[in-house]
Amino acid sequence: MLKIYNTPPSTNWDELCTRPMLEAEDCTNTVTTILKDVQQNGDAALLKYTELYDKVTLSTLQVEKSEIDESETKIDSPLKAAIDLAFDNIYSFHINQLEQEKSITTTKGVNCWRKSVGIENVGLYIPGGTAPLFSTLLMLGIPAKIAGCANISVCTPLNKNGPINSAILYAAKKIGIQTIYTIGGAQAIAALTYGTPTIKKVNKIFGPGNQYVTRAKQLVSLQHVAIDMPAGPSEVLIYADDTAYPSFIAADLLSQAEHGIDSQVILVATNQKIIDAVNDELSVQIKQLSRAEIAMASLANSKAIIFEDVNVAFNFINYYATEHLIIATDNATELCTKVINAGSIFLGHYSPESVGDYASGTNHTLPTNGYAKMYSGVSVDSFIKKITVQQLTKQGLLNIAPTVESMATAEGLQAHKEAVSIRVKQLQQNDF
Amino acid sequence: MLKIYNTPPSTNWDELCTRPMLEAEDCTNTVTTILKDVQQNGDAALLKYTELYDKVTLSTLQVEKSEIDESETKIDSPLKAAIDLAFDNIYSFHINQLEQEKSITTTKGVNCWRKSVGIENVGLYIPGGTAPLFSTLLMLGIPAKIAGCANISVCTPLNKNGPINSAILYAAKKIGIQTIYTIGGAQAIAALTYGTPTIKKVNKIFGPGNQYVTRAKQLVSLQHVAIDMPAGPSEVLIYADDTAYPSFIAADLLSQAEHGIDSQVILVATNQKIIDAVNDELSVQIKQLSRAEIAMASLANSKAIIFEDVNVAFNFINYYATEHLIIATDNATELCTKVINAGSIFLGHYSPESVGDYASGTNHTLPTNGYAKMYSGVSVDSFIKKITVQQLTKQGLLNIAPTVESMATAEGLQAHKEAVSIRVKQLQQNDF
Repeated sequence: MLKIYNTPPSTNWDELCTRPMLEAEDCTNTVTTILKDVQQNGDAALLKYTELYDKVTLSTLQVEKSEIDESETKIDSPLKAAIDLAFDNIYSFHINQLEQEKSITTTKGVNCWRKSVGIENVGLYIPGGTAPLFSTLLMLGIPAKIAGCANISVCTPLNKNGPINSAILYAAKKIGIQTIYTIGGAQAIAALTYGTPTIKKVNKIFGPGNQYVTRAKQLVSLQHVAIDMPAGPSEVLIYADDTAYPSFIAADLLSQAEHGIDSQVILVATNQKIIDAVNDELSVQIKQLSRAEIAMASLANSKAIIFEDVNVAFNFINYYATEHLIIATDNATELCTKVINAGSIFLGHYSPESVGDYASGTNHTLPTNGYAKMYSGVSVDSFIKKITVQQLTKQGLLNIAPTVESMATAEGLQAHKEAVSIRVKQLQQNDF
Repeated sequence: MLKIYNTPPSTNWDELCTRPMLEAEDCTNTVTTILKDVQQNGDAALLKYTELYDKVTLSTLQVEKSEIDESETKIDSPLKAAIDLAFDNIYSFHINQLEQEKSITTTKGVNCWRKSVGIENVGLYIPGGTAPLFSTLLMLGIPAKIAGCANISVCTPLNKNGPINSAILYAAKKIGIQTIYTIGGAQAIAALTYGTPTIKKVNKIFGPGNQYVTRAKQLVSLQHVAIDMPAGPSEVLIYADDTAYPSFIAADLLSQAEHGIDSQVILVATNQKIIDAVNDELSVQIKQLSRAEIAMASLANSKAIIFEDVNVAFNFINYYATEHLIIATDNATELCTKVINAGSIFLGHYSPESVGDYASGTNHTLPTNGYAKMYSGVSVDSFIKKITVQQLTKQGLLNIAPTVESMATAEGLQAHKEAVSIRVKQLQQNDF
């Protein structure tokens, strides 16, 4: 089922690394209209678009606190236990990303440090649709809370058949989030950006979404708010040698392929035998899946590539810069040192991508579409600003004064020099 | 000279926080044309636009390695010593931002960590114009080198009167940068984004520039590369009480005001007497400046605001979210704890902004225009990606398998569950 490429020359790599992109209609005009309308008409526009797109008539935009509190009693106990363990793992991985930085004396009397502060107001977008993505709420809410963000708002659309999913409410309760708005789409991004009488304006917006949400985030990020990262369809690349289990690889490829018809799965293998075995397993396993049709469509875009030379293989892997990289070999730890571009790496035969999607502790909000070359996934850092601070003693200022005066003069910025000179003069006169 | 506002109510803060924006002609069309032309015609387009806009006919696009090497002999020795000390301070502040993160065992047998990797290809834009900004080259090049970026390219336009400034070449030599292209403007951003036969394509572009450069960075960041942060005119806010020296404050305000006519300087003071004294000093000091006219124009936009209540003052200061914040009081360290939004903070009477601009060690590439609410200044982090890694033992997988299976099922993603179940089944059968 995977199309096979044997040792493609690097001149073909650009083509092999092109991601399948759905021919999306250009939604810029629609999104621009929605953004303006919400900016001008606030809550009324939100109610209107929710009725139009989600087919839901809202009597209120916000979930009651009591609904969040009661979620604990409405959720199955195995699922509750699962969310509890996932919470603990994600929490303990992310809490270690907080650092206490020390003050550095760069020159005697010149002390510099960084002060970390959580971004005051953040918005988390959790898509609606077929699946209630409570895992995404954990992945965004936990680091936001650890970072110390003062106000965390969640937007998630209701689906027309009923109340908000209790797993989402329970995840919010665990994290300590009290503000959940039942809106989605570009109108939710607009509300978080501009604020409305009900919805508080935020400084940064996080989370995945459909093409309208993605385009809205992109447009507002040019002027008003920050966003987590550019979004694209999910993807996995698996590297396998003869030590790999073809049945595991097929299962991992399918777990990515079931996401959507634009997902991409790539297998890089050391020989064709492995690929043949994986293809055989794919045909068997796909039949048992509820989302087989989606998986089938996305496998149609997918590729199996043979590289006998491990260094060439990892050159290609770095060139592709995949969101998820599974290294399915006995020597995965050693091969990991060759990776410079990836969102998240899964080492060995017992680290499938789905453990990272839910519960190993790492974040599942990761760069796609080759952005792993320059972006990291979401972490506590994404919710923090680091403000630099400097404090000079009188002697410290005297120590670096000639340096600053000389550089400012060479750059033609006399007033920059004078701000130092006037202090030096005062210190020299007063014999401090 | 500063316009005075006495205890403005918070309903007026939005207006007080509006930055002066030059009525810029919309340069989107011009920039879009340049981007396309460079993408299609490569080096020829670069030569054409350099001739058109910089009035320079280039015989080559790149500075010879020998020119960089010889810079040491062409630079004044006091300036060389100044660059050497600034280099050391910036280096020692930034090297401490590199972290060695430890592996976290989130559940027994589940180990997760982050692997830091420098972004492979980065481009640093150093503006031309009246001043040779070698300080900006230090501020961008040093963290890039510390981060381990493999390829660091610099673009800086030649001015029509002569060769490239030897302070810029010497800064490059100190840092260990060998690739300097003599191009500027939107065409330089295009070259770094798309690559040309001469110029290597990069993953992330850093550095300040005029409105064409800024717009070009903004446009390419939507699709192809990452950028450091949105750019706006420079600004300082000074908080002063009766312990402050009015002559120092005036000098600091002027050092910001001389940058450009769109710079903004704000003085927040506990009483009017301080403002009057600063205004008197401004009238005297401005007369001695070579860039007095620019400073005068930017002071026309600037404000002095009285808040007797220190908490209200710092609420305003956080609302404004200034690039540079000078706390000119005896108790600056204590007041620093009240700051949640600022690019860089200067504590006390002997820490003028110009020390941070050049040599204290902190970075001078900072968020402007209120972006300090959600962005940090440039640091080693800006040049690094953190790739998460997870490695599970067989027992580790068994330990979190029920959690992942339960969550995947609840989200309706069966293949995600199967990727775990197939491994569990194999382990149970093989009694490992």
